[in-house]
Amino acid sequence: MREDHDLHLPEGFRAGAASCGLRADGGPDLGLIVADRAHRAGAVFTNNAVLGAHVYVCREHLARSDNRVRAILVNAKNANCATGEQGIEDARRLCRAVAARIDCPEEQVLMVSTGVIGAPLPVDRLEAGLGAAVADLSSHGIERFARAILTTDTRTKLARVVDTARDTRVLGVAKGSGMIHPDMATMLAFAVGDAPLGDDPFRTARVAADLSFHRISVDGDTSPNDTFLVWSSEANAQPGDDAPEDWGRVGVDLARQIAADGEGASRLVTIQVRGAGSEDDAVAVGRLIATSPLVKTAIAGRDPNWGRILSAAGRARVPIDVVRARVWVGVTAVYEAGRPWPEREAEASAHLCSGDEVVIGVDLAVGQAAADCWTCDLTADYVRINADYRT
Amino acid sequence: MREDHDLHLPEGFRAGAASCGLRADGGPDLGLIVADRAHRAGAVFTNNAVLGAHVYVCREHLARSDNRVRAILVNAKNANCATGEQGIEDARRLCRAVAARIDCPEEQVLMVSTGVIGAPLPVDRLEAGLGAAVADLSSHGIERFARAILTTDTRTKLARVVDTARDTRVLGVAKGSGMIHPDMATMLAFAVGDAPLGDDPFRTARVAADLSFHRISVDGDTSPNDTFLVWSSEANAQPGDDAPEDWGRVGVDLARQIAADGEGASRLVTIQVRGAGSEDDAVAVGRLIATSPLVKTAIAGRDPNWGRILSAAGRARVPIDVVRARVWVGVTAVYEAGRPWPEREAEASAHLCSGDEVVIGVDLAVGQAAADCWTCDLTADYVRINADYRT
Repeated sequence: MREDHDLHLPEGFRAGAASCGLRADGGPDLGLIVADRAHRAGAVFTNNAVLGAHVYVCREHLARSDNRVRAILVNAKNANCATGEQGIEDARRLCRAVAARIDCPEEQVLMVSTGVIGAPLPVDRLEAGLGAAVADLSSHGIERFARAILTTDTRTKLARVVDTARDTRVLGVAKGSGMIHPDMATMLAFAVGDAPLGDDPFRTARVAADLSFHRISVDGDTSPNDTFLVWSSEANAQPGDDAPEDWGRVGVDLARQIAADGEGASRLVTIQVRGAGSEDDAVAVGRLIATSPLVKTAIAGRDPNWGRILSAAGRARVPIDVVRARVWVGVTAVYEAGRPWPEREAEASAHLCSGDEVVIGVDLAVGQAAADCWTCDLTADYVRINADYRT
Repeated sequence: MREDHDLHLPEGFRAGAASCGLRADGGPDLGLIVADRAHRAGAVFTNNAVLGAHVYVCREHLARSDNRVRAILVNAKNANCATGEQGIEDARRLCRAVAARIDCPEEQVLMVSTGVIGAPLPVDRLEAGLGAAVADLSSHGIERFARAILTTDTRTKLARVVDTARDTRVLGVAKGSGMIHPDMATMLAFAVGDAPLGDDPFRTARVAADLSFHRISVDGDTSPNDTFLVWSSEANAQPGDDAPEDWGRVGVDLARQIAADGEGASRLVTIQVRGAGSEDDAVAVGRLIATSPLVKTAIAGRDPNWGRILSAAGRARVPIDVVRARVWVGVTAVYEAGRPWPEREAEASAHLCSGDEVVIGVDLAVGQAAADCWTCDLTADYVRINADYRT
């Protein structure tokens, strides 16, 4: 989140948080966003065959409400996943409790969970904290919400896009640090605004995710709970107005923050793929590089190892002209004209040492299409975090 | 390699090694296997679009020789990859040098390289060491050969299968520790024997690889140099005799050794997939679990984290009945009947602490098909090795 961002929620939305005692440090673990009346929303959920209970309930409620949403409740520390029928009933019960407090039909309430898989949702404690969350609602509560939904993240993730031509805005909030991979990369992201959602808000969510969360990877794993929701008052929208690029820009900003905060990461890595036969090919290559432990450990070691980058690109099974291909680190071409340029590697290494953000790229030399993807380096801290993580 | 194995090469084959000064410690870096006359061979090469120079030369020589091979030369420490036309010419020159020494057509000689990508092959030093490798040839030289081809491996990998019904044998040797993933997982494996190869030795190599190397993963990366070669005198074979299962059994033994020696690994992990709709589905699930950093770090932390196993299985997009599915660690079911059994986790943890080999499994509860895959745990040492590795 850049500091110059205005963190006020769009007109008509309020957010808040509460502590239900699920965190060892007593920090907030329950977040709530409420709109003053029901607005349209669309979503992208995980492609994993194992689904968190909230995915069933969100789908059902969106279908029953004709995609009209009054409130979203999110808890951290417990994924309510692999918890069977009881988990689904627990999620429904919390939606009903929110609906009773803000006086709306229960199907206009969504709830989302993130955290450890397989433990029963502590539904009594969450319900007991609901009053405090409602009391905490305010137009500047998004930072507290952002903090409440974190798991292994080290910082909150917020992004804002203002479309001055349309006079609309989108404010995004996300959490995610491990189990991050295209389809879905989020793990959780919510974008609220007054920008238009088009005829089909689910299509807007999908397009925005394709431009953003589907182009990052931390570890190649996906979560049963991954959810990206777009939700808009569409205050000034005319019928047919559509702005998937605005929702996508907020998505890209959040996706980069998620990659930068990847578990154990010391560098955000932008992967520039150029000269591809199609944008799909470019994204396929970018995703494979983003997933390669060998590329990611090389960056952790500040090693401009173009051989691993080229090998990872070669795994995508898309056209590549190895003789005319180029690989660069920062602005330094380390493989070009069919051969490496070892005399340039010191400059490339210096780029990898230079700051929190680094750039690597490959030109496949077969076409004009391009895409950027994002990942982070793979450090021993990733292993430490995931070998030890379990509540 | 089990100690009771007989390491003598099959009748008519000899192996040896030499030191050409490519290793800092002066150890052997050049391996050679020679047959007393040309025998049929088949191979599986990497699917990576970036190819090591030897892949071009091997394919060309096998085509020109009608798959008849007299000798295989292997060097470590340099992959001769992304080295352009010069790399291919260098590989050809070494094949010619071997052919001159053992008096055979150059197309009956194969050469294979492994090591760092992008550096010119030190062909003068390798050619200078060739005389010593030829002088070293003997019927019990396979262990010296196995040592010469290692890169980041910590131990040699040998396997032997005797088919008593047919009175045939296959002796396998492999190297590989990082950049290991299905298609091809090897990185390099050679199986020599007198067992039959069937009508198409390439098909035998493919079937054997599908049963073995295509079922292991260390880090999800594949190498441009991956090569698996089957080579047989077929001494007692009748026309039409075929024994892909013998070549596959040697492959499985080598593949398990490769996974056990994965970079930084402390555990060999056997992944049992049961109750799948088809064997392909079972392999797809096993490969995803084998590639999941979250599963692999959990095992490094001795954590029987069934949630990560089930989530990884869910990513395969094959049918799975989550309510009837089972997940086990060792012989302990930690997820069963739609819920976790936390009271059994101490027993499951004990299994993960118990030795060098551990078992995890998942029953998808939708069919009868099964497959085993193999991987290793992911430790901080993997990161250390790959952040620092570069000659």
